[in-house]
Amino acid sequence: MSKTLIRNALLIPVDDDKPDFFFGDIMINGDLIEAIAEHPQELQEEDADKVIIGDQLIIMPGFINTHGHAAMTLFRSFADDMPLKDWLEQKIWPVEEYLTGDDVYWGTMLALAEMIRGGTTTFTDMYFFMDRVAEAAAESGIRAVLSRGLIGTGSGSEKGLSETESFADNWHGAENGRINVMLGPHAPYTCPPEFLKKVMALAAKTDLPIQIHLSETAGEVEDSLKEHGFTPPRVLDNLGFFDYPVIAAHCVHLNSDDLAILAEKNVKVAHNPGSNLKLGSGIAPVVNMLQSGIIVGLGTDGASSNNNLDMIEEMRLAALIAKGFTLNPVNVNAGTAVKMATTMGAEALSLVKTGSLKAGWKSDLIGLRCDRPHLTPMHDPVAQLVYAAAAADVDLVMADGRLLYEGGEYKTLDIDKIRAEAELCAKRLVNT
Amino acid sequence: MSKTLIRNALLIPVDDDKPDFFFGDIMINGDLIEAIAEHPQELQEEDADKVIIGDQLIIMPGFINTHGHAAMTLFRSFADDMPLKDWLEQKIWPVEEYLTGDDVYWGTMLALAEMIRGGTTTFTDMYFFMDRVAEAAAESGIRAVLSRGLIGTGSGSEKGLSETESFADNWHGAENGRINVMLGPHAPYTCPPEFLKKVMALAAKTDLPIQIHLSETAGEVEDSLKEHGFTPPRVLDNLGFFDYPVIAAHCVHLNSDDLAILAEKNVKVAHNPGSNLKLGSGIAPVVNMLQSGIIVGLGTDGASSNNNLDMIEEMRLAALIAKGFTLNPVNVNAGTAVKMATTMGAEALSLVKTGSLKAGWKSDLIGLRCDRPHLTPMHDPVAQLVYAAAAADVDLVMADGRLLYEGGEYKTLDIDKIRAEAELCAKRLVNT
Repeated sequence: MSKTLIRNALLIPVDDDKPDFFFGDIMINGDLIEAIAEHPQELQEEDADKVIIGDQLIIMPGFINTHGHAAMTLFRSFADDMPLKDWLEQKIWPVEEYLTGDDVYWGTMLALAEMIRGGTTTFTDMYFFMDRVAEAAAESGIRAVLSRGLIGTGSGSEKGLSETESFADNWHGAENGRINVMLGPHAPYTCPPEFLKKVMALAAKTDLPIQIHLSETAGEVEDSLKEHGFTPPRVLDNLGFFDYPVIAAHCVHLNSDDLAILAEKNVKVAHNPGSNLKLGSGIAPVVNMLQSGIIVGLGTDGASSNNNLDMIEEMRLAALIAKGFTLNPVNVNAGTAVKMATTMGAEALSLVKTGSLKAGWKSDLIGLRCDRPHLTPMHDPVAQLVYAAAAADVDLVMADGRLLYEGGEYKTLDIDKIRAEAELCAKRLVNT
Repeated sequence: MSKTLIRNALLIPVDDDKPDFFFGDIMINGDLIEAIAEHPQELQEEDADKVIIGDQLIIMPGFINTHGHAAMTLFRSFADDMPLKDWLEQKIWPVEEYLTGDDVYWGTMLALAEMIRGGTTTFTDMYFFMDRVAEAAAESGIRAVLSRGLIGTGSGSEKGLSETESFADNWHGAENGRINVMLGPHAPYTCPPEFLKKVMALAAKTDLPIQIHLSETAGEVEDSLKEHGFTPPRVLDNLGFFDYPVIAAHCVHLNSDDLAILAEKNVKVAHNPGSNLKLGSGIAPVVNMLQSGIIVGLGTDGASSNNNLDMIEEMRLAALIAKGFTLNPVNVNAGTAVKMATTMGAEALSLVKTGSLKAGWKSDLIGLRCDRPHLTPMHDPVAQLVYAAAAADVDLVMADGRLLYEGGEYKTLDIDKIRAEAELCAKRLVNT
C-alpha cells in the first residue's frame, strides 16, 4: 500500500476528541488513515511515498450525500418552477419511461463528476438499472450506497425484490467494501403494507439496511391519514418496519408523535433542504429532530429538483433555514452543519469508521483552497466552510485512499467524454 | 472609444422585448452597448478592436447588489451563530470602534475583489470613511452607490449630515457617472423623526435618493409600536419620508398595511435572504411584495452576517425560500429571480439604462462558463443560472465598458496585496 503525507494543513477532523481545527499533518496508508498529528511537521516525510504540502488547504472528511437519484442530472433544469404533481406527471415520469441502461450510466457518471468536484466522497442512490450505477461508482472510485428503487404495486413489484437480491449478491461489499447496498422501497404511498412486509422479510434475510422516502409533502401525510388513519411514520411503526435499520429521506411534515417514533426507534433522517425548498415541500423540523437525538444526514436529492449536487450548499442551507425559520440564529451552528454533512451522514448510512479524520478510519478526505477572497480573513475555518466556501474551492478529493481529483484534474474520469455522452442522452430523452 | 465584439454567445438579455435566451452577438462601444444580434455571426468582426469568442459562455447583465457594508469582510466568520444583540453588542460594535480609514479601504477592496469575481458590477454601500470606499470603487472599476451611514442621535449626528453633503459634492457622478451617492439614515430606530426631517430636507436640496434599514427584525417592529404607536413604515410615511425616492433594506416583518404603503409610495426594497436567515431575522414576504407591484432588488448585506458576497447565491436563496416558505414551487420563478438581481436592482437604486443588455444601455455585463459538470446538460439556461450555477463559473466581468476580470485574472486589482493587507487589518482589529 502506498503512503501519502499531507503536511502543515489546516485540519478540520470532525472528531469530538480533538479541537475543531488545528494546523497539523495527516498520514494516509492505503484505504485507512494511519496518523493525525496536532502539530505541523510532526510526521516524518521519509515514511511517505507522496507528500502533499497542505499550506493554504483545509483538510477535512469528504462529504457524505445521504439521498439522491444520480442519473436525474439528465433532467437538470428540464422542468422548474412547476407544481409538484405537474412536474412529475407531465415532465419527469414521461421522460423516465424512455431511460435506458446507458442513459443511467452516463447520467450517473455526470453526477459523480459533479459530486467528486465538490468534495463528496460517498453518494447514495435510489433509481433504476442499478447495475449500471454500480459500474459507474466502481470506475469512479467514489464510495457508494445503492438501492434499486422498489414500487410495491403493479406487475413489477416482485421483480424488484428479486432484482434487489441479485443486485446485493453481485455488489454489496464490492471494491474493498466501497460499494454498499440497501433495500429501497420508494415510499409508504407507493408501497402498500403487504409489500413493505416482504421488504422487511428481505431485510431480515439479507441483513441490509433500508432507505425510504417519508413524509416529504403535506399532501402525502393527508392521504395517509385518510387511507390508514395514521401518519406515514405511524403506519410504518405499526408494521414493525422500524425494527430494521432505516434511513428516511425528507421527513418534512412530522408531528410530535412522529418525531418521538423516529427518536425511539433510532430511525435516521436524510435532510434535503434544497430540494424541499425548490419543490415547495416545506422546511423540515431539523432543530426538533436534533433536540430529540435523531441522527440527521444531508442529501442533495436528484439534480432535477435542486438543481446541483453541491453538499456545501446543502450544509449552508441546512444551517440558514433552521435559523431563519425558527427566528433563532443559534440553531444549527456551523459545527453541527459539518457533522450532518460528514459523521452523522455516515452513521445514517450504517457506514463504519467513515466520516471523520481519525487514525484507523477510512481515508475519505478532501482539501479546500483557503487563498480565495471569499475565504479571507480566516477567523474561524469551520464557519468559513459552512457560511462562505463553495464547491469550486475543493482542490483535492480522496476516497478509500485513492486520489479522485487534484489541482483541477480528474484522476479517474474522462470529463469531456462524460459531458458529451450525457448531453446526447439528455437531448434524446427530452425530444422523445 | 474601443469596441469589443462578443460572438456566438448564449445571451440572457433580461429584456422583456427579447427571448429569455438565444445565441447571438453583442457589440460594446466604450461605456455603452452598441448592438445586440439575435443570431450568431450577425455583427461584423472588422468593426471591433477586440473579439471575444463566446462559445461556452452565458453573457448577461452584471449583478446589482442593492445592500451591503463592504468593509465588514474584515469580520467575516469572526462571530457566528449568536443572538443578534450579543453579536452586535459583544462582537461587532466593539471592533468597529477601532476601524481606521485604511481598514475600510482594504476591507472594501477585499469585498470588491470577491464581488467582481462573482459577477457583481454594481455594489451598494452604507458605512464609515466613505471617501476611502469611493476611492476603492474608483480604482476597481465597479459601479457604486454609496452612502455615509447616519445615526440620528448623539453628538455626531449633525456632522454626519454635513459630511454627507461634502461627500456627495466630491463623488456623486464621478468616474463617468460610475460613482453615485445616496443619503444613508441607518434606520428608524437609530434616527428619530426630528433627524429624519433633516435628512428629508437634504434630499430636497440635493435631489439624492435615500437608503435606510427597515423592519429587519420582529423586535424592532415591537419597539416602534411601543414608542410611536405605529410600525416603522407607518412612522416614516406619517413623516412624508416616502415622498422622496427610498430603497428600504430588509423589510422582513411587514403587515398588509405596511405592504400597501410601500406599494403606493413606490418604495423599493433591498431583499437580503442570506443575511435575514443567518441572523434569524426571518423570511421577508417577497411573494406579497412582488404581487403588490413593489420593486425588489437583492443584496448580500455585510460579510459578517452572510458570510460571502455572492449574488448567484442570493438569487437562488430568494427563489428557494419563497417557494419553501409558501409551500408553492411556482413562486419567484427563475426569470423573476434574475430580474431581481439585475433590472429590478437597477431600478431600486435609481440607476438609468443599467441592468439589461440593450443597445444604448450601460455596458455592465458578465460571462459565465457553461462547460462545467453542474451546468450540463443545458435544457434551460435561465434555470441553470438560478438553480445550479456558482460564482466561480463567472469568467468575464465588464463594468462601464472596462474589463475587470477575464479568464481567472483581475484586470484592475492586485489580489495578493489586497488579501495580505486585509488580513493584517482584520488581525489587528480582532486582537485589540
